[in-house]
Amino acid sequence: MNRLDIQCELVEQLLVRFLRSEAGKFGFLRAVVGVSGGVDSAVTAALCARAYGPDNVLGVRLPYKTSSPASEADALAVVQQLGIRTRRIEISAMADGYLAPNEVADRIRRGNVMARARMIVLYDLSAEWRALVIGTSNKTEILLGYSTQFGDAACALNPLGDLYKHQIFQLARHLGLPASVIEKTPTADLFEGQTDEGELGFTYAQADALFERMIDQRCGEEQLVAEGFEREFVRRIAARVALNQYKRLPPVIAKLSERTVNHDFRYLRSWGH
Amino acid sequence: MNRLDIQCELVEQLLVRFLRSEAGKFGFLRAVVGVSGGVDSAVTAALCARAYGPDNVLGVRLPYKTSSPASEADALAVVQQLGIRTRRIEISAMADGYLAPNEVADRIRRGNVMARARMIVLYDLSAEWRALVIGTSNKTEILLGYSTQFGDAACALNPLGDLYKHQIFQLARHLGLPASVIEKTPTADLFEGQTDEGELGFTYAQADALFERMIDQRCGEEQLVAEGFEREFVRRIAARVALNQYKRLPPVIAKLSERTVNHDFRYLRSWGH
Repeated sequence: MNRLDIQCELVEQLLVRFLRSEAGKFGFLRAVVGVSGGVDSAVTAALCARAYGPDNVLGVRLPYKTSSPASEADALAVVQQLGIRTRRIEISAMADGYLAPNEVADRIRRGNVMARARMIVLYDLSAEWRALVIGTSNKTEILLGYSTQFGDAACALNPLGDLYKHQIFQLARHLGLPASVIEKTPTADLFEGQTDEGELGFTYAQADALFERMIDQRCGEEQLVAEGFEREFVRRIAARVALNQYKRLPPVIAKLSERTVNHDFRYLRSWGH
Repeated sequence: MNRLDIQCELVEQLLVRFLRSEAGKFGFLRAVVGVSGGVDSAVTAALCARAYGPDNVLGVRLPYKTSSPASEADALAVVQQLGIRTRRIEISAMADGYLAPNEVADRIRRGNVMARARMIVLYDLSAEWRALVIGTSNKTEILLGYSTQFGDAACALNPLGDLYKHQIFQLARHLGLPASVIEKTPTADLFEGQTDEGELGFTYAQADALFERMIDQRCGEEQLVAEGFEREFVRRIAARVALNQYKRLPPVIAKLSERTVNHDFRYLRSWGH
């Protein structure tokens, strides 16, 4: 028994209800999801199919010319298993329209351009389709800032943002998603040979275990060390959470007036009009 | 004397200080600004030049193939007058890499793709240049939701987000920006003949006057009508503010655990680590 284990049946119900009720507030009951072949987007698409019905979910496959064929095959397996609608739109021409003439070689920068090009397609299709873009970021990557701001992090609703990677895998098994999707090594597939854990320098299991104590239980450094976490690891992760805080918040607006957006003008639902 | 008038000297000082101190918290003292030829981006670039020094500000001109040559000339006049660095990167190949094969004809959708393509360039240059993207959205357009989410609305810091359009014009005159930029009709220049006020269906002066009473002074509908605002206009604007609330907030995350990002895990600067 892992401290991180969730009650999958209950979590599934809560998230299906969340997707329905929050989308309804926006006046929508259709979803657009980028389906990469990875476990996060597979779980998101499966929850959307249950919440809105498979015919009201568009799973968009968005390969770049160097994307792995295995990822594409997994993405196709997911949309086929769920019976949702699908479309394949290659982002190569869009991304290369900027990357090539401007000779962008750095692979982090190239990956960010690709993630943002995908956002453009998903948001455009959401307008065409009168649907909401449903996000696929999990709690582990949100805390680590392991995502592209205005790229894969961009969405209207995020059902997985409070679930650690361990919990995503649990939910994926509960939802009966394809074994190849659940069992493969997590990767953003932005360059060849990329794996999340190789790039991060630690495993999801290590990060999840620390976060549960540090974030959910608010344990301080001394207690974490007493519990057996390495001090250097604790500090490194805490610094990373702090450094990436900006990705989790709207832009900072300079306050000059009586009522400033996101300072003291926020609470429209309770604002009588 | 207009109720909306600001003390330009004081506002300039406050915003220069805001830009320096907030950027310093991120560890940056350089700025990237998209310069369109319009008054908002001109004021933003001028404030950045004063805050960081002209050599530390990159004003990026981002025309699409159908952008008006007059806008381009105005953008060039702004960067030349301020003495900031500049680069011209056409977004046509990137935007058309998606728009053409997918035959996107709707001009709102096309405009959103262009605004987001510009965001991609600004964020990529901010990585190359080790700088922050400084936003140019003003309070009137933020409240109206008259912007593209993850497009022109995307930024790290927003100095103008608490200034109404009237106040932007005042500040532009105080900063001595080119007359052609201040005197022309505001337009997003996303399609030919577009003007902001034509598209909105009311003037900035009307919106600003109402917002000062409705948002800053929190006057209710009856009082606004008693003050002479048309009830239909008040309701229409209030509905628009409410409808666009989502653009001003980060994505909604489903709460499942003890500490959820943007619900009860937010206050990192006061979180002891």
